[in-house]
Amino acid sequence: MLSINNSIALVELLGVLAFAFTGIIEARKKRMDLFGAYAVSMIAAFGGGTIRDLLIDNYPLYWVTHSNYALMLLGFALASSLLGAAFYENKQVNNAFEVLDTLGLGLFSTAGASVAHQAGCDFYISLLLGVATAVFGGVLRDIVCNEIPKVFRRNELYATCAFAGSLVFLVSLQAGLNTLVAMLAGVLVTILLRFISVKYKIRLPF
Amino acid sequence: MLSINNSIALVELLGVLAFAFTGIIEARKKRMDLFGAYAVSMIAAFGGGTIRDLLIDNYPLYWVTHSNYALMLLGFALASSLLGAAFYENKQVNNAFEVLDTLGLGLFSTAGASVAHQAGCDFYISLLLGVATAVFGGVLRDIVCNEIPKVFRRNELYATCAFAGSLVFLVSLQAGLNTLVAMLAGVLVTILLRFISVKYKIRLPF
Amino acid sequence: MLSINNSIALVELLGVLAFAFTGIIEARKKRMDLFGAYAVSMIAAFGGGTIRDLLIDNYPLYWVTHSNYALMLLGFALASSLLGAAFYENKQVNNAFEVLDTLGLGLFSTAGASVAHQAGCDFYISLLLGVATAVFGGVLRDIVCNEIPKVFRRNELYATCAFAGSLVFLVSLQAGLNTLVAMLAGVLVTILLRFISVKYKIRLPF
Repeated sequence: MLSINNSIALVELLGVLAFAFTGIIEARKKRMDLFGAYAVSMIAAFGGGTIRDLLIDNYPLYWVTHSNYALMLLGFALASSLLGAAFYENKQVNNAFEVLDTLGLGLFSTAGASVAHQAGCDFYISLLLGVATAVFGGVLRDIVCNEIPKVFRRNELYATCAFAGSLVFLVSLQAGLNTLVAMLAGVLVTILLRFISVKYKIRLPF
Repeated sequence: MLSINNSIALVELLGVLAFAFTGIIEARKKRMDLFGAYAVSMIAAFGGGTIRDLLIDNYPLYWVTHSNYALMLLGFALASSLLGAAFYENKQVNNAFEVLDTLGLGLFSTAGASVAHQAGCDFYISLLLGVATAVFGGVLRDIVCNEIPKVFRRNELYATCAFAGSLVFLVSLQAGLNTLVAMLAGVLVTILLRFISVKYKIRLPF
Repeated sequence: MLSINNSIALVELLGVLAFAFTGIIEARKKRMDLFGAYAVSMIAAFGGGTIRDLLIDNYPLYWVTHSNYALMLLGFALASSLLGAAFYENKQVNNAFEVLDTLGLGLFSTAGASVAHQAGCDFYISLLLGVATAVFGGVLRDIVCNEIPKVFRRNELYATCAFAGSLVFLVSLQAGLNTLVAMLAGVLVTILLRFISVKYKIRLPF
């Protein structure tokens, strides 16, 4: 059976994979080479968690002490280069990327809020750092690709879903729920809200 | 009566308000949604101080342990969204923003130099970190909004005013003046130089 | 005779000079003023090492405790402003900049890998942080100048040369070679590979 710590590690792995894909795809749209694709995938995958950890002095960084992640992403970037446009311009791959991205959004926001909360941040800052963990990898990815961050302009709800997921996670935790259960609740709320927002084209009213 | 520490806290509050406004206005020019406006206002307000603190290992970050600031800026972003273009495209509001921005410039540069100096930085690095505290919130704001930082191109003196203010503050401190008096002197010099530069269209000669 | 520590300091100085020049040139292309040129030269020169040190919690930062570097770059920025376009649009100056840039690339990647290795990072993370030290000053410089980082798009090998240099350095170190000898080997490999790549227009195959 998975322990809480193992579950959080698994959550981080899935999120890392999801966000790395988005980095590779954006890098290729900008006609970057293998090194560029690798760098942007690393930034997209580890950027949010790294910013969170720099802000709360939480060292060592996870990816610095777990170099197998960075090696795994090198494999991803190489594979995507070998497969080429057939891979990253493929409609089905892009649909899969949307699903993985939503999964990553839920996973990173709750895991990020959990790390901030355990580091002693109060409720609201933990909430903000949960959202930051989920969206700032993408923000850095877009800045490096010389775009205004999509998450700040996106029509359908995106950061708001991470916000709702972190909120449900932190409230569940305060209500005395087990961390793993609270995390699952947060992830499900994020995914559900994102799904509804995309399906019914729901936006922030202003 | 205000103690020095209370005064510095007040100085930080006024600066935070001033810079947050500039972030909301830039975000709205780029047609960002509420979340984007909030994120850019946070970056504009806390970015300079956060960069200073990351560079000198000065933890915990002020806004991380004072979550009421982040909540207050959420209120600002919400209010500006509700008021809409009538608010942030209004000429008088923009004039007020110019005044607040100049105030923030003076406040942040002296407070930033003070923090760096107290953390053990030497004269020149304290001076640079004072300027960085004052202008890097705006630099990050412009990078996120996909613009070349205005402060690097601005015709009228801007960073130079922060430089002069930090310089006056640090020299006053070394001359044995009280921290609060030195800070007031630095703020006044910043504001005065900025006012003169805008009024007489003074630029750096190269 | 130079001790290892003195040699590493000399290596850092030469690298700082090389990268600062690239920052001044980019800033002037964007018509920035003196302050902009100074800021971008600081970012180009110290950005890579600063990112490495923030990622591995390696404080105090070198340039924060050695303010003579920051003062020296102020002199550079002032001199380039006084000389004007005759200086930074000059073909020979640009050729010299290419040579210095390649030297900086080799120096920063091996020195960066060395710092990461001494801080306890494993082989692969030390390798990545060596490359990051060498190229992220340029990445930040390009982001601030609102460009997609050249290193991610550059036709001829660039980051790959830093990668090869760091690799040779770390392998030499593990093979028991003296740090200074290993560093020299890494720098030579970086320069040689870059020279061959530019001369024969070698690119990454994908």
